Amino acid sequence: MTRIIKLAVIPGDGIGPEVIEQANRVLDAVLEGGDVVLDRTEFALGAQRFLETGETFPESEQAAIAGYDAILFGAVGGVPGDPRLQHANIERGLLLKLRFDFEHYANVRPCTLFPGVVSSLAEPGDVDFVVVREGTEGPYAGNGGRLRPGAHAEVATEVSVNTAFGIERVVRYAFETALTRQRKKLTWVHKTNVLVHAGATWQRIVQTVAAEYPEIAVDYMHVDAATIFMVQDPSRFDVIVTDNLFGDILTDLAGAIGGGIGLAASGNINPDGTFPSMFEPVHGSAPDIAGKQLADPTAAILSAGLMLDHLGLVSDGERLRSAVRADLVSRGAATRSTGAIGDAVIAQLMPRGA
Amino acid sequence: MTRIIKLAVIPGDGIGPEVIEQANRVLDAVLEGGDVVLDRTEFALGAQRFLETGETFPESEQAAIAGYDAILFGAVGGVPGDPRLQHANIERGLLLKLRFDFEHYANVRPCTLFPGVVSSLAEPGDVDFVVVREGTEGPYAGNGGRLRPGAHAEVATEVSVNTAFGIERVVRYAFETALTRQRKKLTWVHKTNVLVHAGATWQRIVQTVAAEYPEIAVDYMHVDAATIFMVQDPSRFDVIVTDNLFGDILTDLAGAIGGGIGLAASGNINPDGTFPSMFEPVHGSAPDIAGKQLADPTAAILSAGLMLDHLGLVSDGERLRSAVRADLVSRGAATRSTGAIGDAVIAQLMPRGA
Ligand SMILES: CC(C)[C@H](C(=O)O)[C@@H](O)C(=O)O
Ligand SMILES: CC(C)[C@H](C(=O)O)[C@@H](O)C(=O)O
Repeated sequence: MTRIIKLAVIPGDGIGPEVIEQANRVLDAVLEGGDVVLDRTEFALGAQRFLETGETFPESEQAAIAGYDAILFGAVGGVPGDPRLQHANIERGLLLKLRFDFEHYANVRPCTLFPGVVSSLAEPGDVDFVVVREGTEGPYAGNGGRLRPGAHAEVATEVSVNTAFGIERVVRYAFETALTRQRKKLTWVHKTNVLVHAGATWQRIVQTVAAEYPEIAVDYMHVDAATIFMVQDPSRFDVIVTDNLFGDILTDLAGAIGGGIGLAASGNINPDGTFPSMFEPVHGSAPDIAGKQLADPTAAILSAGLMLDHLGLVSDGERLRSAVRADLVSRGAATRSTGAIGDAVIAQLMPRGA
Repeated sequence: MTRIIKLAVIPGDGIGPEVIEQANRVLDAVLEGGDVVLDRTEFALGAQRFLETGETFPESEQAAIAGYDAILFGAVGGVPGDPRLQHANIERGLLLKLRFDFEHYANVRPCTLFPGVVSSLAEPGDVDFVVVREGTEGPYAGNGGRLRPGAHAEVATEVSVNTAFGIERVVRYAFETALTRQRKKLTWVHKTNVLVHAGATWQRIVQTVAAEYPEIAVDYMHVDAATIFMVQDPSRFDVIVTDNLFGDILTDLAGAIGGGIGLAASGNINPDGTFPSMFEPVHGSAPDIAGKQLADPTAAILSAGLMLDHLGLVSDGERLRSAVRADLVSRGAATRSTGAIGDAVIAQLMPRGA
């Protein structure tokens, strides 16, 4: 019996469309011969759309996307400093709106240094952790404002809002993730000695949930110290759970550790299934190299692999990752075009059921 | 004519006293034969003091310290998880109180990879930048609270407070710092696409002040991207100016890049001279290795060097740094005790006026 998966594709700006094109090609190749069919709809959203129409994210499109099974997202953002985008905020108005409104509370960002990837920072095998970043609150809440903008006595505030509800669900997800892993270790990261209010709530909830998971070894680390460990001893991490802003910072750093941001995949997961989850490379739209086939589509391809897992197609996800791993080992130092990397990954795919 | 400098010394906890002992020895050796005399008073403050007396930072001691010319600070903090410290917050009650009340608005943290220091992350010469971290506001303001602590519906907030007044003075300091440097480059770091209120105020002020410094090349970077550049291409940084929390995170990472947190020095500067400035290694109290002469006192020694500069004793500061540099080159891989490193630096000191 054929299973039809409704996939909303948001290629976005800059290198987004190029890398998503390859992710889609790889998805088709992986699923070929199986009983799953992707029914795709493309949504032209992002800075380009804003420049052309003045719209950031029309309600009707959001309502439509809510009915899909999953979202594949490229990257959004125009050329930095473009005066026409000065009063747009595509990040808040589109990307974060998707994450918040669709309750993507578990922003899952695996970090593995694959064999064959050259990194001056670590050895393959030393880097194999996953960051579970809270995705719907904290410093990203958007609360705050500017009093007397432009004046000498201007004051701007940013309010980090942290609810027991919001923390508990992501912490629980992280414990469940740790359960599936061999080392069964969870490190929670915050800055409890300074951000004492949010820190106390996080601590209370981590401790409460930890009591339900005696098989998981839990430790705590300040975010500043976590950056040091990440570059000096990444092997100490297995699962990391942290807030929205610390997670943002640590996962870019993790991308660098894991062989470059061109390989860093992510899933914005709504574990409850009430809204479609969204899969996107961690990198941005990189307008400086857009349209030149210079971008590495591996992060987008691996994000599509996380999507397969999430949709229950774990063996297809594994085949995708095996192909990426095989390609990385044989890649060497030669620069290849975006499309050539897509070709190479497809060429490495093992036949279904092999 | 003899100049007497009144120095308040706060050795603190853990490895603080050990590293400060060596910094003091080196200071004495550097100043020997000159016309500057240090008149030191030690203040026993920190977790140890709290455990013994229940006091964190008595007003009378704060008032006394306010009358000194400078503060040399080791590190504070007890053993993590010590139940007796559960309701103490030495960081907020002592360290941050000093920074805030004494208006240490320019938290200056140079990052140089010295020749002889082995780092898998970078080459000497590639790393030579200074982070000017805002020290008196932002997410460190301490604003916020917990509603319904312990309940299912608990909410905790942290309010980042950013004033034009506070931002302008540190941004101005950073531009002045950039003027003194060869490359004359300033990178301001924030997360303007998400923290739009504070981001807009920072942006307005950086742009306004930049207009007064046409000789400085200014660029902007999101904090997440800054972590990637710091590990992959640190040579692109000259002066970085950023807020209190981003500065905290980036300078620990910078410490790792600059050959380890054992070498990272800092000055908490009150440029207006209304209160004493404070000099401290970036590292913490490391209770696990305390009292064993295992700590590297170099960060504390270099912090003392920043203090000499700040007090106008720049050629003495240079002699101290030359001695540290000479020691680092000849250090090799052998582990040396805290005291032996102090000895070695002193042995490398060039005679006054040589
Ligand atoms: C584009 C930006 C809003 C986003 C974030 O801060 O979350 C990005 O940096 C990321 O990590 O996905
Ligand atoms: C101890 C802590 C409060 C402090 C900070 O966060 O500023 C430390 O990490 C630092 O960087 O000096």
